[in-house]
Amino acid sequence: MGELGEFGLIALVNAGRTQTPGVLLGPGDDAAVIAAPEGRFVVTTDMLVQDRHFRTDWSSPQEIGRKAIAQNAADVVAMGAVPSAFVVGLGCPAETPVEFVRALADGMWAEAGRAGASIAGGDMVRSPLIVISVTAFGDPRRAPIRLSGARPGDVVAVAGPLGHSGAGFAVLSAGTAGKLEFADVVAAHRVPRPPYDAVLELPDTAEITALTDVSDGLLADLGHIAESSRVSIDLESAALADPELEAVGKALGVSPLDWILAGGEDHAFAATFADSSEVPEGWRRVGRVVAGEGVTVDGTSRTGPAGWDSFV
Amino acid sequence: MGELGEFGLIALVNAGRTQTPGVLLGPGDDAAVIAAPEGRFVVTTDMLVQDRHFRTDWSSPQEIGRKAIAQNAADVVAMGAVPSAFVVGLGCPAETPVEFVRALADGMWAEAGRAGASIAGGDMVRSPLIVISVTAFGDPRRAPIRLSGARPGDVVAVAGPLGHSGAGFAVLSAGTAGKLEFADVVAAHRVPRPPYDAVLELPDTAEITALTDVSDGLLADLGHIAESSRVSIDLESAALADPELEAVGKALGVSPLDWILAGGEDHAFAATFADSSEVPEGWRRVGRVVAGEGVTVDGTSRTGPAGWDSFV
Repeated sequence: MGELGEFGLIALVNAGRTQTPGVLLGPGDDAAVIAAPEGRFVVTTDMLVQDRHFRTDWSSPQEIGRKAIAQNAADVVAMGAVPSAFVVGLGCPAETPVEFVRALADGMWAEAGRAGASIAGGDMVRSPLIVISVTAFGDPRRAPIRLSGARPGDVVAVAGPLGHSGAGFAVLSAGTAGKLEFADVVAAHRVPRPPYDAVLELPDTAEITALTDVSDGLLADLGHIAESSRVSIDLESAALADPELEAVGKALGVSPLDWILAGGEDHAFAATFADSSEVPEGWRRVGRVVAGEGVTVDGTSRTGPAGWDSFV
Repeated sequence: MGELGEFGLIALVNAGRTQTPGVLLGPGDDAAVIAAPEGRFVVTTDMLVQDRHFRTDWSSPQEIGRKAIAQNAADVVAMGAVPSAFVVGLGCPAETPVEFVRALADGMWAEAGRAGASIAGGDMVRSPLIVISVTAFGDPRRAPIRLSGARPGDVVAVAGPLGHSGAGFAVLSAGTAGKLEFADVVAAHRVPRPPYDAVLELPDTAEITALTDVSDGLLADLGHIAESSRVSIDLESAALADPELEAVGKALGVSPLDWILAGGEDHAFAATFADSSEVPEGWRRVGRVVAGEGVTVDGTSRTGPAGWDSFV
């Protein structure tokens, strides 16, 4: 890609793209302009580093691009906001094939489209290894749904699969990815599918009190809600069980509950609801909020891996 | 910094900071919330890679942090917008001293303050080398000032020094940075000082037609205006001359005009104004817009380095 130069590359990745209406001014000037009809916007940013957050021998560039956008879109949605736009910083070695960059951009645009938004701009630089920095924006159509609103008596519910990405990571790490029966979890690791609509289509009557996406692992992420809300959360292992993980767990000698509780990167959503009689469509009840602190499973503290820390 | 972990580090860099009022919700939740009182916001992003965009043996972490924020704030101001917030992605080796990260954050906060804004959130990850990704936001209090509005007959003017950063880079590259007489240009390279107020305090009567910040070099950046506006720009070398660069030019055997025309990273502002009778306070006239294409100096095309390309 050294031959094309920065401006040639920018033209290449933007060729044929259509911005969504919220992008008032796209690439080509000193900065982009994004609509913020609510008079405020939600913003989150994640950096992905080659061989730490993705591997080019495990994932195609399209998959890497999708994942980079999905994990940021999930953070926007986890505030109760509707994704409006993304900007992307990309560092690559000069010898990176142009096709790799185009495919990465294709994946990003595909997932941005799934989230209802487009990529409004970015920066491309030379770097000894691939680094992707995504910043995502959203319109908060309701008051932001924070980590701090859970109250004793609330129901804990999740939307989207848990532990599939962790299981897929285990399969890839064990070198058994070629086995067809594990294709689903490997795909889940390569491209998380956050169930955006489970949040964005919540009825106005849903008394959601706290919300997060499961990026570090269910225990870790619910731990943030428990800490911010000064409550304790108790999970029911029976409600968390996932038959789809049984076979892969057996094959690798791992209890699927470990992946469900501590595997990150599924970008499912975890929430608390004040109305304990039922949870909204697309959600399943997995526990309850009680007085105290910390997160327990079936009433007891759990030892073992608690989730992902970027610096461990 | 591996010992502190991601959340310890986040707490460390945010300790004692005060958000500006436009940051409605700062670090600690899935995303931040920023005010956008105009119903839209300006956004730009830059990635800085160690040993390509900065060197830890040439610049202190404070200086690196200031520069990372300044170059993004300059892009926001170059749209005619008022900086409102920044988010920062930071990749570092696990063995990076905590003091380095704190000093980097100090520099970022200092320059954010100079631009009138604060750092609303970010991400910290492990990386084999230091990578900084800054995304900057601004309120467009007037219609965005684009690259495409220059018209024949307009005056070309600049605010802020040109070529000082390029001269400082040359001094550092030659290993003569220790010479006291070159301290000013070395400082200009380490920390650009975009003259934000020259844009933000433009009187309403100023008929500014196009604006950019000088990041790639004056010829390159005015070339973007010329191309977007479908005009030609002719610069007057006499108006560009800078006595402060004479001594360092002589010492290094370089014509200062090369730095002035092709040295990037000063983050001065270059603009065109429709009123040719005078330029606003803080600006100096350096050329004019004519029919045609491309950028000339004293009526002739210039050969030689045209500016910075991220992939050359």
